[in-house]
Amino acid sequence: MIKLGVLLSGSGSNLQAIIDAIAAGNLDASVALVVSSRPDAYGLKRAQAAGIPTVALSREVYNNQAAADELIANELNRANVNYVVMAGYMRKVTAPILNMFPNRVINIHPALLPSFAGAHGISDAWEYGVKVTGVTIHLANAEYDKGPIIAQEPVIILEDDTTETLEERIHAVEHELYPKVLQWFANDKVHLNEKTGKIDIL
Amino acid sequence: MIKLGVLLSGSGSNLQAIIDAIAAGNLDASVALVVSSRPDAYGLKRAQAAGIPTVALSREVYNNQAAADELIANELNRANVNYVVMAGYMRKVTAPILNMFPNRVINIHPALLPSFAGAHGISDAWEYGVKVTGVTIHLANAEYDKGPIIAQEPVIILEDDTTETLEERIHAVEHELYPKVLQWFANDKVHLNEKTGKIDIL
Repeated sequence: MIKLGVLLSGSGSNLQAIIDAIAAGNLDASVALVVSSRPDAYGLKRAQAAGIPTVALSREVYNNQAAADELIANELNRANVNYVVMAGYMRKVTAPILNMFPNRVINIHPALLPSFAGAHGISDAWEYGVKVTGVTIHLANAEYDKGPIIAQEPVIILEDDTTETLEERIHAVEHELYPKVLQWFANDKVHLNEKTGKIDIL
Repeated sequence: MIKLGVLLSGSGSNLQAIIDAIAAGNLDASVALVVSSRPDAYGLKRAQAAGIPTVALSREVYNNQAAADELIANELNRANVNYVVMAGYMRKVTAPILNMFPNRVINIHPALLPSFAGAHGISDAWEYGVKVTGVTIHLANAEYDKGPIIAQEPVIILEDDTTETLEERIHAVEHELYPKVLQWFANDKVHLNEKTGKIDIL
């Protein structure tokens, strides 16, 4: 049983997928805290509906990232979180959080990294004209979108896709993959190989 | 029925896959000419065994790329080739060939472009630690490895893979995908959308 702290900025559909997987008995975890970078994120409502404590950054705190990440790190620590789960968190995670949870900050990206890093993974892949994109779950580190890759799943772009239908399918894969990979953590299957710098799944 | 000119530098296993697909009736094409950048490439033997005319560059011609590509373009033209198929051709294709066959030079790359462009697509992906790689077939243009993507197929990296087993699986996908995509050309299904710059498969 692992304790998760979830960081989000928006609708929180990945948080919901995690909550649902826990309720269904497919993920041996609890969500101890949800942190939103925005006070009006719908994900906060989902957390409250599930009885999960929340922290939302005020605009003043948000604007000072060093202070914000110090505050977030302390709140996560106070909640005895084992892993920090970025779920649509539209902001980098900086030293205060990374140092408090070394190799225990997990991010999901809606493309097959290293292709289409950055804030627009789905539309960048679409514009480029790739025929396969996908979802990546990786450890976050100081080099954004470049941390060791834990899991990837391809999503085939279909000839009659639009950006909207592609986005839907990618989110569907995210919602399935994130709980599955978090269960790997619960089962202690995810190991960073210090020699290769790569993730081994045991 | 389309006429192909195949460029290669090595063993020619993709050429063999094309020859076999034609013989099996799965590809409405003929290979009118095989050009090797090296006089000792095993692919030349495969071509000769299939009764296909060959051209091999001498070292002197090879060393002068402008002259070499002029010669290759003229030979391909003389053979009435419709499409130029790069199949393990370890060299860029330059203006004389690209201008003679605009949007009709096809390349295969053993990774999911734009990730891991360059001469070491398989080992670069392996070293990076991705969990999904694959095969890309694209139109070659002046920006190497950046031409419009025609087809991609993912290859999942397994926990017990080695670079060797991964390489085998990627080559197996290449040998299946290349004839299939060439048949799309034979059926006139591949169209470059001038507005988006992307390939539509009709």
